Amino acid sequence: MIEIPAAARDFLDEIVVGILATVRPDGTPQANPMWFAFDADSGTIRFTHTSKRGKYRNLQVNPGMSFVIMSPNGYRYAEFRGRLLEAIPDPTGAFYGDLSERYDGDRQTPPDAADRVVLVMSIDAVDDTRA
Amino acid sequence: MIEIPAAARDFLDEIVVGILATVRPDGTPQANPMWFAFDADSGTIRFTHTSKRGKYRNLQVNPGMSFVIMSPNGYRYAEFRGRLLEAIPDPTGAFYGDLSERYDGDRQTPPDAADRVVLVMSIDAVDDTRA
Repeated sequence: MIEIPAAARDFLDEIVVGILATVRPDGTPQANPMWFAFDADSGTIRFTHTSKRGKYRNLQVNPGMSFVIMSPNGYRYAEFRGRLLEAIPDPTGAFYGDLSERYDGDRQTPPDAADRVVLVMSIDAVDDTRA
Repeated sequence: MIEIPAAARDFLDEIVVGILATVRPDGTPQANPMWFAFDADSGTIRFTHTSKRGKYRNLQVNPGMSFVIMSPNGYRYAEFRGRLLEAIPDPTGAFYGDLSERYDGDRQTPPDAADRVVLVMSIDAVDDTRA
């Protein structure tokens, strides 16, 4: 587990939508907003996703991930770089429920629960921090 | 020039910081917040950058770009996919000045003006729109 600079560490506790970038099989980048939760014990960032969508397929070919968390105006931010460590099946959508409660205060079960996975991302580097 | 869905088109007029994803020479993604301006005549998105920084080097190897513009809470967004068409030298930092005026209402000259370039990104596809 790397040492995370204090300014970047603070972003990991924010309840904000970050942007996750991956690389498509054709070598071009993909980026989308994502809910997240930081697991301080393992030093990993966790996302809810499904095994049927593009980002999941991207990560099977190229596990590289970059996750940006920024202030509302975008002038402060941190970029976390890592890779997919594992995709844990979440067939009841429990982790989606955790995140929906954290973000919306309302625990929801996703309609696509059967396909849900928890993407576990390592933090191998923190780049381009502007705090 | 592709047809941009109306919901995505609206995002291109917003004065917000978006997230630009590129791919590093080692094949891993990079993502950072960026000011931007949409040029409706050419259908391109323009950024101010420098020829000394990582994203510029990434794009020399892999011209693929993905740019996400989202609402403040991240629940509405559009992902624009394209590639670097050209990097136009901007040695007086004039385009940086344009963007600083657009974003901050205060025209600034960057200290690294000599190295400034305008990155011109095509819009080849609009993906994952949630408007």
